[in-house]
Amino acid sequence: MQIAIVVYPGMTALDIVGPYEVLRCIPGADLRFVWTEPGPVIADSGVFVMAATHSFDETPAPDIVLIGGSGAASGTIAKNQQLLEWLRRTHETTQWTASVCTGSVVLAAAGLLDGKPATTHWSEMSVLKGLGAQAISDKRIVHTGKIVTGAGVSAGIDLALWLVGRIAGDDVARAAQLVIEYDPQPPYDSGSLQKATAATKRSVAAFVGREAKKLAVTEPRAFLRETTALSELAWRIAVRKARRHSPGRRRARGSSGAA
Amino acid sequence: MQIAIVVYPGMTALDIVGPYEVLRCIPGADLRFVWTEPGPVIADSGVFVMAATHSFDETPAPDIVLIGGSGAASGTIAKNQQLLEWLRRTHETTQWTASVCTGSVVLAAAGLLDGKPATTHWSEMSVLKGLGAQAISDKRIVHTGKIVTGAGVSAGIDLALWLVGRIAGDDVARAAQLVIEYDPQPPYDSGSLQKATAATKRSVAAFVGREAKKLAVTEPRAFLRETTALSELAWRIAVRKARRHSPGRRRARGSSGAA
Repeated sequence: MQIAIVVYPGMTALDIVGPYEVLRCIPGADLRFVWTEPGPVIADSGVFVMAATHSFDETPAPDIVLIGGSGAASGTIAKNQQLLEWLRRTHETTQWTASVCTGSVVLAAAGLLDGKPATTHWSEMSVLKGLGAQAISDKRIVHTGKIVTGAGVSAGIDLALWLVGRIAGDDVARAAQLVIEYDPQPPYDSGSLQKATAATKRSVAAFVGREAKKLAVTEPRAFLRETTALSELAWRIAVRKARRHSPGRRRARGSSGAA
Repeated sequence: MQIAIVVYPGMTALDIVGPYEVLRCIPGADLRFVWTEPGPVIADSGVFVMAATHSFDETPAPDIVLIGGSGAASGTIAKNQQLLEWLRRTHETTQWTASVCTGSVVLAAAGLLDGKPATTHWSEMSVLKGLGAQAISDKRIVHTGKIVTGAGVSAGIDLALWLVGRIAGDDVARAAQLVIEYDPQPPYDSGSLQKATAATKRSVAAFVGREAKKLAVTEPRAFLRETTALSELAWRIAVRKARRHSPGRRRARGSSGAA
C-alpha cells in the first residue's frame, strides 16, 4: 500500500510526522514524502529540514494521500497549481485522501471539498468555509466518503489511528497506539478554543506575531510572498462569496447536492 | 535560549518532532538539531530523512539538551562515545537535560541517571534499570533535579509542554498547547501496557518482528551492527549487575547516595 505524504516549504512538521509514525505500522506500508522534486524542504520554523523522497511525477497513483498544514505558507501552498493538479488527479484513484490542520484548506483550494464537511486548525475555519467547504469546528476528525480531515497539528495522530483502524483493522490500530505509547496526559487543558482562556488566546496572538516578525526580518522576500498569497486567497474567497450571491449560480448549485 | 535536539541514524522521528513543535513556542527559542556533523540523518523507518543542522563541536553549551529514542538503533546509539561524551559535557551547564522514549537509555549509558528516577518506552524498562537508573514504569514524565525523562514516543509532547511551563511559565505552555491544538482524542484506549489487551501486545510483537526482518533483508550490515550493539549492551548490563553483587562495591555505593 503506497502512502504519499506531501511535504512543502513552510509546512508544520508535526502535522505530518504524527501521522507518519502511526501509518507506518500498517503491514506492507510503503511510505514516501512527495513534493515537486526530491530534495530538502524547510519547515515553517526555518530550522527543521526534511527530505522529499519522491516527486509528484514519480507518484501518479498512491493509495493514500496525506497533506499537512502550515502557519505562514498556507496562502502560497493553496495556490500552487502543480500541487493542486496532482491532488485532483491522485484523488481519482486513492483509497483515502487525508489532511491535517490547514492541509484541508489546500484540499478545498483543489476543489475537493466543495459543499463537503471538513475541519481544520481552529484559526482557519473561516478560510475553509470561504473556499466552499462545510467547516465543522467541534470535531477532531471529520470524514466524508474517502476524504478525512483533522483539526490542528497534533490532531494528525488521532486521525492516523482512526485511518489505520479503517485500513488494517482495530487490532493493528491499537498496536500502533501501544507502539507510540499514545496515552496522552497533557499537563494543561487548553488545547481547544473552547477550553482556552482569553489570556491563552492573547499569548497565541503574540506567538503568531513574533513568527511573522521573524519572517519579515530574516526572510523579507518570503514574508512578502506569503502576504501577497494570503491577500490573493482573500480575493479568491471574496469573489467566490460574491458569485454565490448571483441568483443564477444559486439555482445551478441547488441541483448539484452537497455531501 | 539555545535548545539542542539530538538527531541520529535510526532515531524515531516523532520522539523529537513532538517536543520540537512545542519548544519552539518559547519566546527567544533558538533551536538546532545536532549530530556528529551537519547533514542528512535517516530515521528508523528508512524513508524519513531530516537534517542535523549543527555538529556537537559547534554546540558546546546549549541551555537545553533533548534526546529522543529509537527502535532498532538503541544499542548502537547507547555506545556512541562521541555522543556520550558530548552529553556528559553539555549536561554540566544545561538548564535542562531531557529525553523521550529510549533517549533515557542513552542518558543512562552516559552515566547521567545513576540511581536516579527515570522513565522510558515500556519495552525498555529493564534495560534502563540494568544501566543503573531507578526505572519508573507508571509515570509519563519523571523529573529529578534538572533531568526530565518521558515515556514512549508521543510522550515527548506532554514532556515538552511541562518543560515550557517550567521555562516560560504556564501561560506560554497553555498557548503552545492551543497553537498545536493538543486536545487529544485517541479513537482507541490502548496506549499503555496497563490498558492494552493481550491481542494488542501480540500485534506489537508482530510489528517489531516485521521491522527487524525488513532491516535484515534491506540492510543486512545495519541489522548485524544493531544485533551486535544490543548484545554488547546486554553484556554491559550483566557486568554491571555482577559488580553490584561485590560486597566492596556495595559499600562504596552506600556512601554515594541516590536521588
